Amino acid sequence: MTKDEMRAAILEAKAEKQMTWEQIAREVGCSPVFVTSACLGENSMTDEQAGKLTGTLGLGKEVAQALMRCPVRARQGEALMTDPVIYRAFKEVGMVYGETFKELVHEKFGDGIMSAIDFTMDVEKVEDPKGDRVKIVMNGKFLPYKRW
Amino acid sequence: MTKDEMRAAILEAKAEKQMTWEQIAREVGCSPVFVTSACLGENSMTDEQAGKLTGTLGLGKEVAQALMRCPVRARQGEALMTDPVIYRAFKEVGMVYGETFKELVHEKFGDGIMSAIDFTMDVEKVEDPKGDRVKIVMNGKFLPYKRW
Amino acid sequence: MTKDEMRAAILEAKAEKQMTWEQIAREVGCSPVFVTSACLGENSMTDEQAGKLTGTLGLGKEVAQALMRCPVRARQGEALMTDPVIYRAFKEVGMVYGETFKELVHEKFGDGIMSAIDFTMDVEKVEDPKGDRVKIVMNGKFLPYKRW
Amino acid sequence: MTKDEMRAAILEAKAEKQMTWEQIAREVGCSPVFVTSACLGENSMTDEQAGKLTGTLGLGKEVAQALMRCPVRARQGEALMTDPVIYRAFKEVGMVYGETFKELVHEKFGDGIMSAIDFTMDVEKVEDPKGDRVKIVMNGKFLPYKRW
Amino acid sequence: MTKDEMRAAILEAKAEKQMTWEQIAREVGCSPVFVTSACLGENSMTDEQAGKLTGTLGLGKEVAQALMRCPVRARQGEALMTDPVIYRAFKEVGMVYGETFKELVHEKFGDGIMSAIDFTMDVEKVEDPKGDRVKIVMNGKFLPYKRW
Amino acid sequence: MTKDEMRAAILEAKAEKQMTWEQIAREVGCSPVFVTSACLGENSMTDEQAGKLTGTLGLGKEVAQALMRCPVRARQGEALMTDPVIYRAFKEVGMVYGETFKELVHEKFGDGIMSAIDFTMDVEKVEDPKGDRVKIVMNGKFLPYKRW
Amino acid sequence: MTKDEMRAAILEAKAEKQMTWEQIAREVGCSPVFVTSACLGENSMTDEQAGKLTGTLGLGKEVAQALMRCPVRARQGEALMTDPVIYRAFKEVGMVYGETFKELVHEKFGDGIMSAIDFTMDVEKVEDPKGDRVKIVMNGKFLPYKRW
Amino acid sequence: MTKDEMRAAILEAKAEKQMTWEQIAREVGCSPVFVTSACLGENSMTDEQAGKLTGTLGLGKEVAQALMRCPVRARQGEALMTDPVIYRAFKEVGMVYGETFKELVHEKFGDGIMSAIDFTMDVEKVEDPKGDRVKIVMNGKFLPYKRW
Amino acid sequence: MTKDEMRAAILEAKAEKQMTWEQIAREVGCSPVFVTSACLGENSMTDEQAGKLTGTLGLGKEVAQALMRCPVRARQGEALMTDPVIYRAFKEVGMVYGETFKELVHEKFGDGIMSAIDFTMDVEKVEDPKGDRVKIVMNGKFLPYKRW
Amino acid sequence: MTKDEMRAAILEAKAEKQMTWEQIAREVGCSPVFVTSACLGENSMTDEQAGKLTGTLGLGKEVAQALMRCPVRARQGEALMTDPVIYRAFKEVGMVYGETFKELVHEKFGDGIMSAIDFTMDVEKVEDPKGDRVKIVMNGKFLPYKRW
Repeated sequence: MTKDEMRAAILEAKAEKQMTWEQIAREVGCSPVFVTSACLGENSMTDEQAGKLTGTLGLGKEVAQALMRCPVRARQGEALMTDPVIYRAFKEVGMVYGETFKELVHEKFGDGIMSAIDFTMDVEKVEDPKGDRVKIVMNGKFLPYKRW
Repeated sequence: MTKDEMRAAILEAKAEKQMTWEQIAREVGCSPVFVTSACLGENSMTDEQAGKLTGTLGLGKEVAQALMRCPVRARQGEALMTDPVIYRAFKEVGMVYGETFKELVHEKFGDGIMSAIDFTMDVEKVEDPKGDRVKIVMNGKFLPYKRW
Repeated sequence: MTKDEMRAAILEAKAEKQMTWEQIAREVGCSPVFVTSACLGENSMTDEQAGKLTGTLGLGKEVAQALMRCPVRARQGEALMTDPVIYRAFKEVGMVYGETFKELVHEKFGDGIMSAIDFTMDVEKVEDPKGDRVKIVMNGKFLPYKRW
Repeated sequence: MTKDEMRAAILEAKAEKQMTWEQIAREVGCSPVFVTSACLGENSMTDEQAGKLTGTLGLGKEVAQALMRCPVRARQGEALMTDPVIYRAFKEVGMVYGETFKELVHEKFGDGIMSAIDFTMDVEKVEDPKGDRVKIVMNGKFLPYKRW
Repeated sequence: MTKDEMRAAILEAKAEKQMTWEQIAREVGCSPVFVTSACLGENSMTDEQAGKLTGTLGLGKEVAQALMRCPVRARQGEALMTDPVIYRAFKEVGMVYGETFKELVHEKFGDGIMSAIDFTMDVEKVEDPKGDRVKIVMNGKFLPYKRW
Repeated sequence: MTKDEMRAAILEAKAEKQMTWEQIAREVGCSPVFVTSACLGENSMTDEQAGKLTGTLGLGKEVAQALMRCPVRARQGEALMTDPVIYRAFKEVGMVYGETFKELVHEKFGDGIMSAIDFTMDVEKVEDPKGDRVKIVMNGKFLPYKRW
Repeated sequence: MTKDEMRAAILEAKAEKQMTWEQIAREVGCSPVFVTSACLGENSMTDEQAGKLTGTLGLGKEVAQALMRCPVRARQGEALMTDPVIYRAFKEVGMVYGETFKELVHEKFGDGIMSAIDFTMDVEKVEDPKGDRVKIVMNGKFLPYKRW
Repeated sequence: MTKDEMRAAILEAKAEKQMTWEQIAREVGCSPVFVTSACLGENSMTDEQAGKLTGTLGLGKEVAQALMRCPVRARQGEALMTDPVIYRAFKEVGMVYGETFKELVHEKFGDGIMSAIDFTMDVEKVEDPKGDRVKIVMNGKFLPYKRW
Repeated sequence: MTKDEMRAAILEAKAEKQMTWEQIAREVGCSPVFVTSACLGENSMTDEQAGKLTGTLGLGKEVAQALMRCPVRARQGEALMTDPVIYRAFKEVGMVYGETFKELVHEKFGDGIMSAIDFTMDVEKVEDPKGDRVKIVMNGKFLPYKRW
Repeated sequence: MTKDEMRAAILEAKAEKQMTWEQIAREVGCSPVFVTSACLGENSMTDEQAGKLTGTLGLGKEVAQALMRCPVRARQGEALMTDPVIYRAFKEVGMVYGETFKELVHEKFGDGIMSAIDFTMDVEKVEDPKGDRVKIVMNGKFLPYKRW
C-alpha cells in the first residue's frame, strides 16, 4: 500500500466516522499537527501510534504499515504554495520576516539554526471579540554550526 | 533617502552603539520582530516610533522619514530562501506542514485564512538542558472567505 | 466526490439545462462571479446555497457536499495565465499597473493592502455604440499592517 | 533623459511640493491611475499633458519629453509580484478568479477578450463603518476574435 | 466532447479522406490558418463554419458543437517552443527582432500595439529557383493606448 | 566600442537629427527592419552600409566598426517579452498559432523549417477606415531536413 | 499509430531480432545516427527508407507510415539533459565551449550560423591503448545572415 | 587581475595586432579551440603556453598568471544559449539528437559516458560548391561506470 | 520489462523476504550503495551480479535483463531535492561547501575534477555516545583537463 | 567591512604570502575545509580562530570581525552549480545517488536525516598508480524526526 493509498483510506474513514483531527489525536495520544501530517503522508508513526490510529478508524494492517514507513517529505514541492492559506503563513511570512528571524536567532543564540527535525508545531484558535485569531507555535532545537 | 540607505545607516549605528534588537525594541516600545523588520525595510513605523528609534541610535530626520514610508515588501523574493536558517523555518516547514496547517485551520475555523497583515510574530529562546530551543509564535486574525 | 468530479457534473447539468451562470446565480441568490467560482472549485458554498444550486440543476447530495468543502484554491497556479482572456486582465494589467495601484492604496489608506478574502468581484457588460465594454469591479476590505 | 531618471525627478519634486497623485491628476486633467502610471514610466503622455505636469511640479523640458516617449511596459516583469499589495490584487485574484472571469466574458460577449489597451482603471476608497474598502474598477473594450 | 477529443476526431477523418488543410479551408470558405487553428483547438467557429466542416469530413454534431465552443488558448504554453519549426519563427525571431518591431510600430503609429485578436495570419509558399521560401503575413489592427 | 555604446551613440544622434528609421534606411539603401535591428545590436552591417549610416548620422569610425562586428543575438533573452507590443506579436501568436504554422509548413513543403537566417521581415502600415492595421511580412528560405 | 507507439514497436522488434542500430542502418542504407533518431521519433524517413526498415524488422505498414510523418522534434525539452551521457556532450560542452565556437565560426565564415537542419552527425569509436575514445562529428551547412 | 580583466586585455591586444585565433594558436603551439577557450576564461594554460601567448600579444605577467589560474567554468550558465549560433549547435542538437547519442554510446561501448574533461574539440571549414560547411569534431575518452 | 517495473518487483520481493540492502549486497558481493542504486534504476549490473540478485530474491529473468540495461540516470531531476534527507546532504552542502571543494581540489590536484563515473560512495553508521553519526565517503578519480 | 570585502582581502593576502589552505589551516588549528569555507564567507569563526588567521596573513581587525559575523550561507544559490567540479560532486551525485542515500539512512537509523549543521567535511588526495583519487568524507549527526 502506497502512502497515497493510505492517505485516501484514512481520509475516507475519517469522513465516515465524522471525526476531527483533534479527536483522532486524542485517541492516538499525540498532537493534532503530528497526527494530521502523518496521515497526509509527511511523517511516520511508531508501531503503537499506528495501531491506535487504525484501531480508532477501523482500518487494516496495511494502513498501519504504511503509516510506519519513512515518507518522501515535501512531495508536492512548491505546488501547494499558491493556495492562499499556505501562501500567507509560510511563503509570504518567510519572504517578509525571514531575514528578521535570522537576525534574532543569531542575536539570541549565535551562529546556528532552528531544527526542522527536532521540531514541534501547534495550531490554536484564540478567541477574540474583534475576530478570532489563528496562533501557530513552532518549537525547534537550536543547532549551533560546528567548527572543526 | 532610500530604504536601502536607511537600512545601512541603522545597521552601522547599531553596531557602533553595540545595541541588540531587543534593547532597541525596548527603547522604541514595541516588539523585537517588528522593530527589526522595519529597520531591515520590510515594515513602516509611526511618526512616534521612528522618532524614538532615531533618537536612540542618534540618527537624523531622513532616517525617520524613510522608516515611515510604505515599503516594497518581500523585496528579495525567493533569493534568501537558500540560507539554511530561513530555509528550514519557512520553506521546508511550509512544504512539509503546509497542507496540515490548512486542514487544521479549516477544521477549527471554516473556510478562510490566517491574515499575514493583522499579524504578529515573536521569536523566543527556551532554555532546555538537552539543548536550548527556538520558539516562533505567529498570531494572525482569521479572515473568513466572503460569499456574495 | 472530488472537486473535479463535482465540477464536471455541474458543467454537464448546466449544458443540458441550457442555463447561464447569471440564471443559476439568480436561483441560488448570490452573485454570478461567486457562483461560477464555487462551481469551478475555487470557493465553498453554505449548506443553503449548495442545496439551491443542486436543486436547480437536479443534482445529488454528493455534489452539494463537495460544494461545501473548503477548496484548494489557485490549483492551476500560473498554467491558465497563457490564455489571452486571463493574461490581459490579471497578468498584464498587474505588471503594467501594479506599482500604480500600490502607490494609490498607500496614498489613500496608508500602509496596508486590499483583502482578497473579504472581497467581492463583479463582471458587467457596458453597452457602447463604439463597441461594448467589459467592466470588472473588485471590492476588498482595506487591511492596515499591524505594528506591535 | 531616461524613463528612470524622469521617474526619479518626478518623485522628488512631488515629495518636495507635498502633492498627492490625486492633486497632480486634477492639475493635468486626467485620472489618478493614468497620471501615476505615466510618471512611474508605464504610460506615455500627450504634449499637453506632459506640459501641464511639468508646469505643476516645476520640472524642465527633458522631463516632458521623457513623459511623451513610448515606454517599455511591464519592465519589472514578475519581480514586483511578491509585494503583498500587488500579489493579492493581481496574481492571487487572477489565479483564483481567472477561469471564472473567462467563463463570464464568454457567456456575456462570446469569443473574445477585454482589451488591456483601450482600457481604463480607477481606484477608489469606499468608506464603511466595518472598515473602509478598496474598490478597483477596470473597463476595457470587448474585442471579438476575428474569423477569416 | 472535449476539445481534445474533437481534435483527434478531425485529424483522423482528415487522414482518412486524405484532404489537406487548404482543401478543407476551401470547403468551409475561410482561410487555411483559421481552419487549422480551430481544428487544433485554438479558435472557435461559427455555426455555419462548423456545419460545413463536419459535413465535409463526415463528422457528427458533437464535433460541430465542440468547434463552436470558446477554447482555452495557448493551452500548451511554452512546451511546443522547442520544436525547431516553431522556435525559429516565433521565439527566435521574437528575441532577435522584437525590439526592432516595437521601434517601428511606435515610429509609424505612436503608442499602441498590434492586436492579436482582430488579427489574421497567412502562410504561403513562394517558389524560388534558389530554394522555395516560406512567407508569413500577419495583419492586426493597431490599438492606441487610451489616456483617460 | 561595445555594441551597447554603439547603440547609445546611434540613438542619440538619431534623436538630435530627428530622423526616422525609414529615412535612415533610405540613406543606407536597405530595409527599415534590417537597419533598426543592426543599430539596436542584433545584426551586423557591411563596410559600405556602416559607412553610409555613420556618414548620415555624423558618427565616427568606431561606430562603423562596432556595426560591422558579429553581434551576440537575442541578448535580452525572454526579458523583453513582457512588453505588450512584443508579447502579442511573437509570444502569444507563437503559442496560439505555432502548431498551426507547423502543420501548414509540413503540408506545403514537407519535413523542414523556415530559416530565421536567410530571412527578411517587413513592417507596414495599412490604412483602413475602420482603424489602421499593422502588417508584418516574414520571408524565410525553406530548409528541408537532411537524411543521411 | 502515434510516434510513441511506433517507437515502442521498433524497440521491441529490435530487441527480439537482437540487431544493433549499426546493422539496421546498413539494411536501410543510411547512417546509424539518422536511423536511430528517426526510430526514436526525432526525424522522418522517406517512403523507401521506412519500407526497408519495417521489412528488416518485420513490422507493419502503420509503423512505416508513422516513420514518414513529420515529428514534433525536441519533444522532451530539457528533461533528458540530466542524464550524464547527454549532459556532458551537449549541455556542459555547450556552456564551456559555446562562446569559443561562436568566435571561430565568425572568424572563419563571417556572420552566420551552422545549420542544424542541413546537418549530419556521426558517432564513432576510436580505439586507444590508453582507453577508447568517443568521437562525434557534426557537419552543418554554413548559413550567412541575410542583409536586406 | 580577474579572468574578466584578462579576457578584455587579450581581446583588445588581439584586435590591435589584427591576429586571428588560428594565428595565435600557431604561435602558442596548440589548437585554436583550446586557445580561444582559455582566453575567454573557460580553460587554464600551462606556464609555457601562457608565456608564449602574452609574448605574442605583448601583454604583461598578470595576464599570464590569470591564464594559468583554474577558471570557474560555464560562468554564464544558460544565458548565452539564446544566441542562434550557440543554440543550434548545442541546445537544439542536444535536444534532438541527445537520446540518439546515448543509444549509440551504449551500443558501442557499454554503460558509461564520453568525458568532457579528457576531451578535445575542433572546428573546421569544409569548402563545398553547394555552400561551405562547418565541421565540429569532439573527441572524449570513454569512461565506464564503476561497479563496486 | 521497464526499469520502473523492475524496481517495483525488487522492492516488493525485498519487503516479502524482509532483507536489508546490506544483506542483499553481501549476497551479490558488492557494496550496498551500488546495489541499492542499481535496484532503484540508477546503475546497471553485470550478468553475474544480476543473476545473484535475482537468485537471492527469487525473481525471474526479465528482472535480471532489466538490471543489466543502461539506465537513464537522474531521471527525477531536481524533483526529489525537496526531501529533507536528500536536500541537506547534496543541495545544501553543495551550495554551502561547493566553492570550498573546488578551491581544495585545485590546490591539491591542479585544474580538473573528481569523476562521478569512476566513482564509489559508501554510507556508514558511526556510533557516538553524543548521538550516532552518518558518514558518507565519496571516492572519485581525479581527471585533469586536457590541453590540446 | 562586508563579507565580500573580507573575502577579497584574504584571497589577496593568501596569494601574496603564497600560502595554501592546508598551511593556513594548520596555523589556525582547524580543518582545511572549515578554514576555506569561513574565508569564502560561508562559515563564521571564533574570536581565537579569527585572530590566528589574520595574524598569519597579516590582516587587520575588521577582517577578524567580519570572519566572526554570522554569514548569509548559500549566497550564490544554484549559480555555481554549472561549474563542472561542483556539478559532478553535488548536483549530479545528488540526482543519481540521492534516493539511494535516503534508503540507506532509513535502513540504518530509522526516520531522520544527516545534519548539515553538526557536520564536518574533509577532502583528501588518495595516491593511486592508476590515477590519483579525490576522497570526500562527510560526517553529520543523525537527527531523528520528533513525534509529539
